[in-house]
Formats: sequence, C-alpha cells, structure tokens
Amino acid sequence: MFLHTVRSEGLAHLSYIVGDGGHAAVIDPRRDCDVYLRIARDEGCHVTHIFETHRNEDYVIGSTALAARTGADIYHGKELGFRYGNAVSDGDTFELGGARLTVLHTPGHTMESISLALADTGFSDRPVGVFTGDALFVGDVGRTDFFPDNAEEVAGLLYDSLHEKLLPLGDGVILYPAHGAGSVCGDAMASREFSTLGYEREANPRLQLERAEFVSFKVNEHHYQPPYFRKMEELNLEGAPVVAALPVPEPLPAEEFAAAMDEGALVIDLRSPEAAAGARVPGSLVIPLNMLPSFGGWFLPYDRPLALVVEYPDEAQTTVRYLHRLGYSEVAGYLEDGLHGWEVSGREFEAIPQITAQTLRDRLAAGEQFTLLDVRKKGEFEEGHLEGARHIYVGELPDRVDEVPEDGPVVTFCGSGRRAIIAASVLCRAGFESVENCLGSVRVCAALGCEIIT
Amino acid sequence: MFLHTVRSEGLAHLSYIVGDGGHAAVIDPRRDCDVYLRIARDEGCHVTHIFETHRNEDYVIGSTALAARTGADIYHGKELGFRYGNAVSDGDTFELGGARLTVLHTPGHTMESISLALADTGFSDRPVGVFTGDALFVGDVGRTDFFPDNAEEVAGLLYDSLHEKLLPLGDGVILYPAHGAGSVCGDAMASREFSTLGYEREANPRLQLERAEFVSFKVNEHHYQPPYFRKMEELNLEGAPVVAALPVPEPLPAEEFAAAMDEGALVIDLRSPEAAAGARVPGSLVIPLNMLPSFGGWFLPYDRPLALVVEYPDEAQTTVRYLHRLGYSEVAGYLEDGLHGWEVSGREFEAIPQITAQTLRDRLAAGEQFTLLDVRKKGEFEEGHLEGARHIYVGELPDRVDEVPEDGPVVTFCGSGRRAIIAASVLCRAGFESVENCLGSVRVCAALGCEIIT
Amino acid sequence: MFLHTVRSEGLAHLSYIVGDGGHAAVIDPRRDCDVYLRIARDEGCHVTHIFETHRNEDYVIGSTALAARTGADIYHGKELGFRYGNAVSDGDTFELGGARLTVLHTPGHTMESISLALADTGFSDRPVGVFTGDALFVGDVGRTDFFPDNAEEVAGLLYDSLHEKLLPLGDGVILYPAHGAGSVCGDAMASREFSTLGYEREANPRLQLERAEFVSFKVNEHHYQPPYFRKMEELNLEGAPVVAALPVPEPLPAEEFAAAMDEGALVIDLRSPEAAAGARVPGSLVIPLNMLPSFGGWFLPYDRPLALVVEYPDEAQTTVRYLHRLGYSEVAGYLEDGLHGWEVSGREFEAIPQITAQTLRDRLAAGEQFTLLDVRKKGEFEEGHLEGARHIYVGELPDRVDEVPEDGPVVTFCGSGRRAIIAASVLCRAGFESVENCLGSVRVCAALGCEIIT
Amino acid sequence: MFLHTVRSEGLAHLSYIVGDGGHAAVIDPRRDCDVYLRIARDEGCHVTHIFETHRNEDYVIGSTALAARTGADIYHGKELGFRYGNAVSDGDTFELGGARLTVLHTPGHTMESISLALADTGFSDRPVGVFTGDALFVGDVGRTDFFPDNAEEVAGLLYDSLHEKLLPLGDGVILYPAHGAGSVCGDAMASREFSTLGYEREANPRLQLERAEFVSFKVNEHHYQPPYFRKMEELNLEGAPVVAALPVPEPLPAEEFAAAMDEGALVIDLRSPEAAAGARVPGSLVIPLNMLPSFGGWFLPYDRPLALVVEYPDEAQTTVRYLHRLGYSEVAGYLEDGLHGWEVSGREFEAIPQITAQTLRDRLAAGEQFTLLDVRKKGEFEEGHLEGARHIYVGELPDRVDEVPEDGPVVTFCGSGRRAIIAASVLCRAGFESVENCLGSVRVCAALGCEIIT
Repeated sequence: MFLHTVRSEGLAHLSYIVGDGGHAAVIDPRRDCDVYLRIARDEGCHVTHIFETHRNEDYVIGSTALAARTGADIYHGKELGFRYGNAVSDGDTFELGGARLTVLHTPGHTMESISLALADTGFSDRPVGVFTGDALFVGDVGRTDFFPDNAEEVAGLLYDSLHEKLLPLGDGVILYPAHGAGSVCGDAMASREFSTLGYEREANPRLQLERAEFVSFKVNEHHYQPPYFRKMEELNLEGAPVVAALPVPEPLPAEEFAAAMDEGALVIDLRSPEAAAGARVPGSLVIPLNMLPSFGGWFLPYDRPLALVVEYPDEAQTTVRYLHRLGYSEVAGYLEDGLHGWEVSGREFEAIPQITAQTLRDRLAAGEQFTLLDVRKKGEFEEGHLEGARHIYVGELPDRVDEVPEDGPVVTFCGSGRRAIIAASVLCRAGFESVENCLGSVRVCAALGCEIIT
Repeated sequence: MFLHTVRSEGLAHLSYIVGDGGHAAVIDPRRDCDVYLRIARDEGCHVTHIFETHRNEDYVIGSTALAARTGADIYHGKELGFRYGNAVSDGDTFELGGARLTVLHTPGHTMESISLALADTGFSDRPVGVFTGDALFVGDVGRTDFFPDNAEEVAGLLYDSLHEKLLPLGDGVILYPAHGAGSVCGDAMASREFSTLGYEREANPRLQLERAEFVSFKVNEHHYQPPYFRKMEELNLEGAPVVAALPVPEPLPAEEFAAAMDEGALVIDLRSPEAAAGARVPGSLVIPLNMLPSFGGWFLPYDRPLALVVEYPDEAQTTVRYLHRLGYSEVAGYLEDGLHGWEVSGREFEAIPQITAQTLRDRLAAGEQFTLLDVRKKGEFEEGHLEGARHIYVGELPDRVDEVPEDGPVVTFCGSGRRAIIAASVLCRAGFESVENCLGSVRVCAALGCEIIT
Repeated sequence: MFLHTVRSEGLAHLSYIVGDGGHAAVIDPRRDCDVYLRIARDEGCHVTHIFETHRNEDYVIGSTALAARTGADIYHGKELGFRYGNAVSDGDTFELGGARLTVLHTPGHTMESISLALADTGFSDRPVGVFTGDALFVGDVGRTDFFPDNAEEVAGLLYDSLHEKLLPLGDGVILYPAHGAGSVCGDAMASREFSTLGYEREANPRLQLERAEFVSFKVNEHHYQPPYFRKMEELNLEGAPVVAALPVPEPLPAEEFAAAMDEGALVIDLRSPEAAAGARVPGSLVIPLNMLPSFGGWFLPYDRPLALVVEYPDEAQTTVRYLHRLGYSEVAGYLEDGLHGWEVSGREFEAIPQITAQTLRDRLAAGEQFTLLDVRKKGEFEEGHLEGARHIYVGELPDRVDEVPEDGPVVTFCGSGRRAIIAASVLCRAGFESVENCLGSVRVCAALGCEIIT
Repeated sequence: MFLHTVRSEGLAHLSYIVGDGGHAAVIDPRRDCDVYLRIARDEGCHVTHIFETHRNEDYVIGSTALAARTGADIYHGKELGFRYGNAVSDGDTFELGGARLTVLHTPGHTMESISLALADTGFSDRPVGVFTGDALFVGDVGRTDFFPDNAEEVAGLLYDSLHEKLLPLGDGVILYPAHGAGSVCGDAMASREFSTLGYEREANPRLQLERAEFVSFKVNEHHYQPPYFRKMEELNLEGAPVVAALPVPEPLPAEEFAAAMDEGALVIDLRSPEAAAGARVPGSLVIPLNMLPSFGGWFLPYDRPLALVVEYPDEAQTTVRYLHRLGYSEVAGYLEDGLHGWEVSGREFEAIPQITAQTLRDRLAAGEQFTLLDVRKKGEFEEGHLEGARHIYVGELPDRVDEVPEDGPVVTFCGSGRRAIIAASVLCRAGFESVENCLGSVRVCAALGCEIIT
C-alpha cells in the first residue's frame, strides 16, 4: 500500500493518492493533475477513484480533469447538488486491493463534508489514517463561517463531527487534512504537516474546548472571504471545464505589452517586493508570485486579460499554473526580458519608496503627519498595532480605498512589507501620489521602542 | 539569432527552430511538439511560422498541433493540394528579426519539396545555412522512388535541385537536413550530423555523379516503402488531428492484459532481443523499443488496439510517444510488472532460442537441414550472404510468410539479430514451431570462416 | 517543522531529515548523501546533527560523508566503541528550533541501539513521532540474532525496549523506522510505510506476544547473515572512508571487457532474468539490478574488480551507486552497447533455458530425473515446497555448490524465478552443464495441481 | 561521429566534446566538468583527450579536473611552459575512431595558441570543422592586447594565422570558436553561434582588411583587462587545483550573516538591479547574477570570504558555480530567506533611487548640478554620450573613485542601468551619500531629445 501527499504551493492545499493492488484513489485532486498520473505510473497502478472531501471554496478542484484523463469515478457527499460525480453516504466503503476507504459524514465546514478512514485490511480493520478534508487540520479545525445564518448550528455540527466521528477512530490514526499552514482555510495550523488523532486530541487547542465554548469560539472567529470564493463554489458545483494542457504564456515585447494594456489588460507584477519597489510598470498591481495563490483572488477580475511582469520566463509559467488553479484563464502574455525590457524601450516606470522600521519610528516620534495604513487581518491588528494606525485589510482595500485620506502621504504597513506592497500598489493605481511602504513589522517596531496598542 | 536542432529518436527525424527578435520559425515540427514551446520560452520568443519542407511519408508532421498551441501560420510548397496551411513559391522571403528565410523550390524527392535558405541580414544577405528537407542529407541525397512512373524525371529534378538550387548557394553554407543516420529516408547518411554545402560538394558520393549517372543511380536504387507510408501521406495532406496531450498508458495486471488480448489487442514486446528471446507472451510481436520508429509501420495495424510489454513503465510512455508520431492512437495498456507479472500469474510463456554465429557455422558445415532466413534489406543481402540463405526482407515477411518452408527448423538472421528477432516472432505468430534466432552477422560469420556469397 | 523520508531502494533503508528554525538533523544517512544537502537547501537550513540509531550491518552509513560535507556532529549510542562521533545517553535532548529530539536507549537489535522521540515544542512536550531504528518496524520488530550466545537476553532486551520505552510514548506517536518492506532486516514488514505506535500496538503481530512468548519466538526465528555484514560492521565502527563523488563507470568495448575478465574481473549481469536467460556472457554472475542491494553482499568479493553488463548506461551508474552503499569501490566498467556489443563482436554467449510451471509439473508427473533446487529461505521452504525439492538458500549456494548432484539436469526454483536465476548462474559458473530455471512458484504450481509438502 | 557544444553562461565560453568509436576529446573544458562525463556516458564513450586551444585569461580551465575524473591526457601548444599536460606541434594528428584532429599553430591571441581541424576520415581527409580557440570568432577575431610591447608583431601573427592557416582550410569548414557573443574576449561577435570559414571570409568585417589595415586596427583596438586575468593566467599555467565537488552554500540567518560581515566577508548582492535598488544590505556590492561571470573579476578579492544575497537558494548554488569558474572558493553563505530575512530581523537597509531617462533629460535641460557618471566602455562613450557626462569604466571605478566629486549628487549611467547599478553600489560603499542610478541609455535619451556628443 502506498500513500503520497501532493502539495499545491501557496494554497497550502494537500491532496493525496493512495493505492494498493494496482488501483489508486485520489483525494481532492488539484486541477493541474499530471502529477497523479505520474505517481500512478511509477506505482504501477490505475487511478480508479476520485474523492472530494467537500465542495471547495478556495481552488478549482481537479476531479473533472483527472476523470477525463483516467476514466476514474468521482465521489462526494450527498448533501449538495453536485452536477457531476456520485453521491456517497456515511458508512460506504471502497476497496482498492488491501486498502479500504470508509466514508464518514463530517459536516460543519460544509454540509456535505466527508472524511475517509483508511484501513490496511491485511493487518486490521481498524483505520491507520483518515483524510479529514477541512474538518480537522494539524493544530486547527475547519472554518464554519460559510453559513452565517446558521452559525451556531454549523459550529455545533463540526464539534460533533470532530468528537463523535473523528476522534473515536482512535489515537493511533494518522491525520491527512486538506490544508497545511498558510492556507486561507485556517489561521492556526502548525507548520508541521504530520500528526495523529491522538496528538491532536491532546495538543490541538480547538479540541480542548467544551461544546459550548467551541461553538462560541467558532461563531466569534473572524475569517475573510475573498470574492473569488463565489466563482470557485460555482465551478466546483457544476464541474470545472477540462482544459487539455496548461497554456504556455507568450513573451510580449514592451511595445506589445503596452498595447495589451491599452486594450484593457491588467498588469500584475509578480516580482519580489523589493524589485517592484525599485521600478515597476505604472498602473501595475503588485502581487509577489508566492502570494498569488492566497491573494490573487481578492484582486483579479475574471473578465479582463492579465499581463504579467516576472523576473524569469519560468515564473510566467508558474503564474499561469497558479491562475489555472484559481480558474483564471485569460493571460495576455508576459513582459519580454522583464522590467529591463520595459526600461530599455524608453518607457516611464515608477518606484515605491521603501522605508525601514527605524524611519517609521522616527517619523512617529517626530509627530509627522501621514496616514499609517495597517493592512493586516483584523485579528492581527487587534492583537497589537502602532499608535495612530488605521486598519483596512489588504483584500478589502480596493473596495475601501476612498476611506484613505488622499491629501497626505500614506505609509502601508503589515507584518513584513509583503502584504503592504500589494496595498501600496493598490493605492498607486487609485491615484495616490505619495505612497511609501514600510518593510517592517509590529514586532520589529516594538523592539525599536515604538508603543504598541493592544 | 538562435537555431536549435530537435531530434526524434529512431525516426532520425531532424527538425529545427530558428529565431531572432522575439519571433521563431519551426521547420518540420514533430507531432509531440511541447519541445518547441519550451525552447521558444527559454529564448523569449513566439513561434510565428511553421514550415514543412515537403509532405512527409515517414511520420505525422506536427504542424497542426503546433499551430493549435501557438497560433503560428503553416507554410508549404504549392505543388500539392494540402488541405491546410499556406502555399509558398520559390523566392518568397520571411523575416524574423534579423533572420531571413528564403524559399527555394527543390523538387525531386516530392514535387512540392522546398528548401529554406537562412540569412543573418545584420551581417550579409548571403545565406549562412539552408534547411534542405529530404533533398540533401549529410552524405546522401533524398529518395526518388515515390513516382515510379516518372522515375527518371524526378531523379533529374532532384539533380537539378541539388546542382542548380542548393550548391550554388555557396560552399560556406551550413546544411540542415530533415533526417540523420538511421532514417528510412536514406541508407548512406553519415553518422555525423553537421556539414556544409562545400563539404558535401566534395565528399558526398551522390554529388560526384554527372546528371545521367545520377539519374541512372537513383532509378536503380532500391528502397522499401512500409505500408504505413500511405497513412502518413493521407494525414499529412489533410492535416493531422490535434491531440491535446499524449495519453498516459495504463498498467494492466496479467489477467486484464490477457482479457485485452482476447478482445483483439495485438501484443507488442518492446524489450531487448535477449529478454524477448528468454521469455515472451505467446503470440506477441517482438519489436525492440529503439526499433519501433523505423519498423513499427511495417507490422502494426491502425484498427486494432495494441497491448505493450516493456521492462519499465517509462518505456510504455516512450512507446506511446513513438506510436503517436506514427499516427497510432489506440493503446490498450501495458503489462503490469512486465513479463514477471505474466510469469507469476501462472500463465504460459514461450522462448525463442538464440544461437551464436559459431553454432550457425557448425550447422552449416555439418550440412544440417534448416531454412536460413536472411531478413536484411535486398542491398545488404546482395552485398554478401551465407550460402543457402533465403532472403525475405523483415518488413515484407508478414505478407510472404508462406514462402518459408514450414516443415523444418528456421533460423532467422540479419546484421546483428535485432531485425531477425522481429522476424522470428513473426514466424512464431504464424505457427512455425521450430524457430531460432542467430545473434550474429555476416561479418562475424565471415571472420569465423563461413563462405560469403556476393 | 519539516520531516522528509529518504529511501534507499533495494535496501529498503529509510533515513530521515527533520528540521526547524534553520537547523536540521539527519537520522541514519545513506552514503550517497547529496540528497540531504538538496533538501536542506530547499528548506533553507543547515544540517547540524547526524544521528545513528545503531551500528548498521546491512549498508555503509553515510555519517562521515555527510559530516565532511556539512560540518555536522555525529551522535550514536554509548554502548559500542565507535571510532568517530559522540556518544549519547538515554534522556539526552537536542533542540533544533521548535523540534526536540530525545534519546531513548532501546537495546535488543544491538546493544547500543537508540530511538529518538520527536516533539514539536511549540505545541506540546509530548512526542509526535519516534525514530525507532531497527527496534520497531511497521508490522515487525528488529532482528535479535547478532548475539547468538546471549539470544534470550537480547530478545528480552528488545521486548523491554518495545514495551517499556517505545509503546509508553503513547498511541498517537508516528512511527519512523529504519527499514521498510524488502529489507533483509525483517521478513514481516508491511508494504505500507506509515503507522503509529497505537496502530502497531494493536496490529503488529509481534507486539501481541507476552514476554516469554516473544523471547521464544525471537530465539527461534531464522535469519540469514550475508558475509558482507562483517565488512559493514567494520566500516561502521571505524567510520567509512569519505569518497568525494560517485565514480562514473566507463563503457568497455567487448574487447576491453574481455581483457578485464582475463585480468580477473568478475562479470555481474544486472539485466532482467529474462534477458540474462536469453543470452549472457559466459561465466557471468546474474543479479538483476533491483536485487543487487539485497543479494550482492552474498556473492561479490571486495578484492576483485567488477565488470558490469547492463541494458542502458544509466543502469551502470545506478549499479555503482548501489555498490557504493555496500562498500564496493572497484568497478572495471560496463560492457559498451550492452550484450549486443558482445554479440556483434563475434564472441560466444550462453543461454539459460527458462521453463514454465506447467513444464515443471509435467516433468514431475512424468517422474523425470532431475534435481529440483529450491533456493528460497529456510522458512519459505518449510511452509511448503514441491515434492522431491532439495533446499539450499540462494545466498549459501556458492559455499554449498558441491551438495548439488553434478551428474544430471538441475532446475532452479524459488518464488518467481528471480532468485532462481541467480542460483542458475552460480551453477553455470561452477561448471554445471544442464541448468534450467523455472519462472514459476509454489503458489502457481499448487494452482496447477502439484502436490505441496508442508 | 558526434559533436556537442557546451556553453558556460555569462562567460560565453564555448567548449566542445567530439568523439567517435568509443573515444572522445574535449576542447577547452570548463572547470565544473560533470557535463562532459554525462555526454560521454550517453554517447557510450571515454574521454581520452583534452585539448586547450591556449592558456585562457578569463576563466579557470577544467583540464586538470576532467583529467582527474577520466584519466584523459591533456594537450596544448608548446610555446608556453605549462606545468602540466603535453605539448603539441603544428601538424600533429590525433585519431578517435573516424575523427581526426590535426593541430594548427595559430598564434596571435597568445603565442602558444592552436586550432584543431576536424576530419571525418570515413568521408574525406578534408576538414569538416575547425576549433579556433580565440583566433577566430563568429563575426570577430581574437584580442591581441596581451603583449603590448610587441603589439604590431602579434597582430601580424594573428593576421597570418587567419589568412595562412585557417581560411585555407576551405570555405566549407564549420567554425567552432571558444567564445560567443557576450564574452570579454571580443566586442563584435555575432549573437549567432554557427558559421563557416566561407561565411566569415565574406562577412566578418575583420577579415576584409588588408594586413597593414588589420595590424593597425588591432593595435588601436581598446580592450579592458580585469585584474582577475592575472590569477587565471597563473592557475592556467600551473594547472588549477582539483576540487572534488562544488560546495553547497549554506543559508545564514540575518544574525549570522551580519556576523560574517563583521568578520570581514564582502557582501555581493546578485539580485536584479530593480530589487537591489529597492532595498539592499548596507555596504553590499551589487552585481546582478547574470553579470557575475563578466564583471565579478573586476571587483571581487581572492582573500576575503564572500557573503551572498540572492532571491532564491538555487541562485546561491549558481553563484558558487560561477565563482568556481573564476577561481573563487571562499563563500561564507547566503542570506537566509533573501533580503526579506534581513528586513524582518529589524536591520536597516538602503535603497538606491532609480531615475528614468525622462527625469535625466529634464534635469539636464534644467541645468541641475550633479555628476553624470557614464561607466560604459571607452569605445561606447566615444561613440556618443550625453553632454557633461564624465567617463570612468565601471571596472575601473573602485580604483578611480576619488575622481568622482563627493560634494554633490551623482547619477550613474550606462547602456541600460545594469552596469550603472554596479557603479552606484561601488559609490555607496565608498561613502557617497547622494547616488542615483538611471535605468536609461544613450539611445533612449537621444530618442527623448537629449543632445548626444560624438
């Protein structure tokens, strides 16, 4: 019996392929699904089953793509009206050689959420592992904010799923969740990807709560819902269109790149914050490449072509891959020879000045007038922020940009300058003329003697 | 300006991608065309032009596939009624940055054959290289056996193309032909892939001939035309169907493999001659993988699924790639765990005894009764063969198997045992009960003292 | 915190790299240690600690090689007089960022065996995993046959290590053993590589036994000790010599290959059993490549150069890698162009006829006279064998070849023909003239109606 | 016969491996020589010969490293007292199967320079290609500035080598030079890497000159000699020390990185000009990674450890490779997590403001006071520069920094901003407080209406 974890970087999405005796099942496949075919080939088996632990909100699931390549059958919970695949019920079992997968209905995150217990029947009927989808993570539990009208009910459902379905499987059961640290599906996940039900039972803070405490905690938890979630839900209900192969993005000389802009393309600058700060195409939206999976869905429209600025051509291909996972398909191309190509064509570029935490401290101490815009999450802001800071979450900034005073300098600020550079570019795009980005953090500012408001 | 050669192994097909200033042209693309996209990306350019030097007989050209991926335009000679692409005339020029391609009509191999002279206009209008398709190779010239009714005329056309169109370009012009050594498109090509018109003018035996000698030589030259050529000509006239991605072959456990056989699949054994000799699935056709591109088209039907026996799963993928290039699309799968999987399932297997050249010599010396079946090309046979050898070319054996005496042992023989093992498996499939393969050659036999008939 | 498993194929040796906060530890590194450097680089950390769970018998440990590349410190149990590294004691702890490794003295397999409990201190002081070396495997426990004079005592020590040291860590602790299925260090390991202490407590057959039962079981267990174990023990006590880079094996044309043989090189044929059966270099020892790690140490001398026969040049490189892990360093080269190169040079080759299980059954039924040599392990033979079969374990055959009757045909036999082909080649090398190999098994023979003696 | 070109990026160094019949020769191997071993293995041959066309000035030749791995013999011209290898004379020949290499003494670039004519003796004794070292390039000829006391003599020697030794080989001979476009060994090379003697005879501007014109041209040609040339000449005369494997650079957390700086490490920032401009470690020298091979030797000392700032860990490995080719071996490590790691540690960083060509034009037009420092080559400057520009070549800036006025702002300028960012960082390191870099060029400025002085 084999089991491999397949990670989708940035999304921190974990999918799995498990098999035995020449057959394999994939749990929550990603959309660029060649990787499962390669593993199946190396293990000498067919992919015959595809399981979706739930209808995902944060990425396009690859079930239809993988089924088109393999002929495998798709299975998911019966409590949602999927337009494709087959509905399964609590207790259903699937055998792949000596591997038995047993369906557990574990609602809470969504109503149709399922988990899959894995047994090695040659040894025991007891499970050795469990695929928990978005019900239980390493160090955290799933979000329950998708049904605000029934907030308490769904939080209670999740509690029951955790305590009555999952934990009773036994301490010695390995945990295989659908997300790891960095996912938008949970804030408190461990960086460690391996755990067991026994370890979580004792060390997962959420599992230490009584039912009422748990419900109260979950109801009061704050999560953001990027606008692209709606698109994902739609695609994952209907079954995402199958795309034969990832498109290969075309290099665009500066002139063609500018023409694409004139024709309506939105420029995304995927380089490092420092490079984007040093010089960027005027009007471009800065989203460093490794932040695209988590943040792209807040900013990118589905009805405009995207024009890319990257350091290396390979990164354009990676960008297309990340966009594909989020359902974006219209890429006009990437700037040939990177920003250098733009510069030597004689076109104007812009910089976004970066300031140190020391500079920020000194300005605050001197009582200089400027807007300090903290774009971290609400919870981070509440835990501690600089005096005078104004809070707007980076993802919400495009819709709330008119809340930022236009008549003076703005310094964007977050936990390191990475989200703040996105925000700075949003402000620049909105016409703000004096925008600086602080490559600092509350922690650093505190160490430098700034007062922190909690 | 860049220029890369892309080889298709086995077919010894050489294609080229040349570009400058952000644009690239591909000459005679292969069907699995991702490689050109990767090169174009690394060189930071678009593929905008696709040229076909002629309608190919020996492989499915990738023009339609590459055009579908890139939007490039396809160009070919105007003397044939292609159902796709654009016709070009002698003297037409195409500019890609500083690279200029000039069309030369160079008929002979086919009527619509073109060559493309390449100039680096930043330096000179004189050509620095020429893509000659199947007109001129390193050490050989193109076949002229496709118009048997006009044999002399087309041979003369080729002579004129060579001497009036190509050689006049100048000695210092690099030669970029469509095939290298090992191709079915010529017997005498050098193993060396690099040459110039000047070198060929002096060292290519065919270019030393006067026109009449040349015509006579070409008219009397003997070439084989495998039956799949017809299929290639048809696909390459119509425009081959575009396949999104190479299929990933499925492993079939012995039981499913046997079931596929029962349902009509033809088993091809792609392992080494020695392995196929040691043990093989009864009824299988042996074609070692590296011989598949050149020999598959003689033996494989287009209307039956193919079931593969390989040593490693990777080889099944390579097989599918090779078959794709020859237009075969129906692969049932490959035997899981190789022949070992078949053996441990308890199914019967067969061996083909291999004999050494020493044994063959001794049997001949002792006057033993057996059919010595020499399956080399006509020309090789005529140059020298063992006494008593009977000649049938390996490719023609399926149609001429009834010419082989069934009432006694048969020893198959070629230049090394590689073609002979194919022949041996053809005989086994035809019901011959005593078939041995000699892993020897005329050269070895001569060294051992056998008499050679010339 | 990250944790990666690194497998050494064939040996089924599992090593681990675990790290946090910029530091990493490697547990039981393999000798070709580049893989850990690559992982460390990708994870952005230094390798600072190397742990050896015990002095290994079955491979050369890579501690000295990895320490030479990284400057890391080496640690092992204090009960053996290692000539390098540092001794640790039960209870010692090592911190790498938030990862804490705690030493547990777990003797039994060897006296100085240690396990390492892994805690993620940001979450809990309880362990989340444990590296058990050769104490506890998935589905099996370590061998205790290395101290035959104290057999009961060491078996008891292992029992106590398992029940008093390891299991008390808790059910929810993930198991990270030093070997997986296929290792010579245990017969009963699961093919599955993942488990927990809780799962093993309930499903591992060895952990179901009472102490006395366990001791009795272990004392009566039969294991083979290949002769190379002595060499490994010596190297792993002294610290293996550090080799800068894996040598690149040279291709040898048939003539040079033959010359190397004349100068004393031993020929190993690493191709598939079927290929070796079809044709092989006379005098060669057949060990299919994937069997080399487990079986090479039975047959290969440390004082003779080895000359390789492989299908592809890549396999020669893999062979050198496998040999390096077993401490063999003298490789003369590999046969250029494989066996084909030998054949076309006109040299003689030999075949080993392969027979089917059907043929074997028929011969047995007909009462034919021949030696049926079963070369499986003692335990396999005792569980069931064909009537009249004579048993000599494949590894012991070179020393016991004079027990095989020379005056009649011999059929070698095992569980599939893979070990039997090794045995057949040993007999051929010893001068036996009529050797056949059966590509069958007791299971297949039973299905065909043969009587099985148990 | 096979022939492969191996490129060393950045240095634009071209080396070759050519072989036939199981043997291969490498011409001018690079120091990281695994690539030749891989090719030789894939081609099934031994590397038996290593040729050096001359004692190189611009990189450490890999002859000793490759000889140590293969046992091959090293050959070079006899007019220099190499401390290793064998001397060859004009007319010496070497046979590798059907490949014959004939030595031609072609002095001029250096006294002991040789070329190697390549014949395919199966076809003709005439050469089909020639390895010309630094005598003849595509579109240019070798430098003759290494013997300033005999300038005319050596220029004449080169003329004679070109016209009496090389061109007489024949128009149809393919040119295989030791460098391509981008090398410091010539300014006028074509971007195209393929050519013939015939094409060069007609299109290479230097070959159109009469002897006296040629000598005059070469004597008046201006080339820079970076200081590291002396080190290369020394190593390449003695035979460079053989290093077993490229070291793997260690990531250094910001604290350790700062400590390495305190202990004397020089920080090189290898990121893009824009990123280095956005934020960099104070005191760091900026050399974008792809410029390191050509420019590193001007700035980097051999007696101080180097500490690297890169965007991705892979780039640190590439940096080490590039440094190895230039003989630098002491690398302290690279900044963990890139500049981000530095920022979040709370350490101060600096920016270098980038200005557009438009801004520069406006400042010039407005008569603003500042030093415009043009750091291009002398020849480029003389061809055209902005009014008021002061010229110091980037490579010479460290020694001439006191020529730059310290009491006012400085704007660095080159052909695109890439060399200018190096210069800007040199000035910052020297204590200049107001340094800006213009990401523009003379061409762009001219297009914007600036006056160009010629």
